[in-house]
Amino acid sequence: MSPRPGLFLTFEGIDGSGKSTQARLLADALRAQGQDVILTREPGGSPGAEEIRRLVLEGDPDRWSAETEILLFTAARRDHLERTIEPALAAGKVVICDRFADSTRMYQGLSRGNLRRVVDQLHVLMIGREPDLTLLIDMEPSTGLNRAKGRQGTEERFEDFGVELQHKMRAGFLSLAQEFADRFRVIDGDRGIQDVSADVTAAVADALIHNGHGA
Amino acid sequence: MSPRPGLFLTFEGIDGSGKSTQARLLADALRAQGQDVILTREPGGSPGAEEIRRLVLEGDPDRWSAETEILLFTAARRDHLERTIEPALAAGKVVICDRFADSTRMYQGLSRGNLRRVVDQLHVLMIGREPDLTLLIDMEPSTGLNRAKGRQGTEERFEDFGVELQHKMRAGFLSLAQEFADRFRVIDGDRGIQDVSADVTAAVADALIHNGHGA
Repeated sequence: MSPRPGLFLTFEGIDGSGKSTQARLLADALRAQGQDVILTREPGGSPGAEEIRRLVLEGDPDRWSAETEILLFTAARRDHLERTIEPALAAGKVVICDRFADSTRMYQGLSRGNLRRVVDQLHVLMIGREPDLTLLIDMEPSTGLNRAKGRQGTEERFEDFGVELQHKMRAGFLSLAQEFADRFRVIDGDRGIQDVSADVTAAVADALIHNGHGA
Repeated sequence: MSPRPGLFLTFEGIDGSGKSTQARLLADALRAQGQDVILTREPGGSPGAEEIRRLVLEGDPDRWSAETEILLFTAARRDHLERTIEPALAAGKVVICDRFADSTRMYQGLSRGNLRRVVDQLHVLMIGREPDLTLLIDMEPSTGLNRAKGRQGTEERFEDFGVELQHKMRAGFLSLAQEFADRFRVIDGDRGIQDVSADVTAAVADALIHNGHGA
């Protein structure tokens, strides 16, 4: 019995894009196919990383500088990677993660000054791991913003940026999709949930067969 | 009025070396001379950094990997630097800090695997600042260990390492003193508090005159 390798899938997109719903639907669909699936999210995803998440997201949004925030998110990601993601991948599981390093490249690298170089150097030094496949749920920012505003929660601070900034974020994610074209798939999120889900499942089916997880 | 530059002094040494007492005595002495002094410590030294300190030092000592711990300490140091140290130095004050980056080079760089390279790269990328003068209170580890064991507190985890490891730590600090010979002064801490304090004051007097803080 040669163990098949794990598969690391991430969802990215602006707030309200529906990526968390799609991550859940995908986990359900893969489990129904008999796959061993871990559904996780960032920031957070391990007990330590969830504590760091609270430290970053609660309280005054300006309590941390952009640089300190990048360090805290990288610490959370390192813990999440060591305690949750790597053990699951080593056991041959499918790991589905709602946001990962691309969100840091986007939000911390772009929105609070031009810190992409710092984000990249920290990633190379302390994280290293990239997803096998990243599903970018792309959508018109005004739709995403209206959806996000209908919700409550600790992510509010990232959602209070207005439609102009959401346009910038969308463009940023699309630019990452070009930069890392070999692992990104851009999914049109401006449709019904089931249509979006069908595209996600098709993209993942290819990756699974490629990786020895197919039927 | 040309503003005189601030002066950044740090104390380092193994636990129980008396460095915190010496830092306090020095602050008192400099204030009595009319200097504007900030006495601070690491990990911690700013509200955010103190919260990160609690996250790292409370709970199971193995809850964080060495790498995650280095990231958390670097996040705390970045916050401390931005909010406490740099503003005070910019205002021409004398900043006395009980432990700084040399403690991370020592404890995280040496005691939990050989991570000095990671510590150094993070320091260059996110911190940059070095002290003007570092006072290493050097002493026989058995003396320091007995003193440390007489205390209670959150630093216990670093003090439960036994005398053999304390010897390794002492050697590590002495080796840092050689590596950064231009800013380190090694003070013999195996004497009475007043004798040690006199040597500290003399070393700092030179630095003050050099820096435009002299009489």
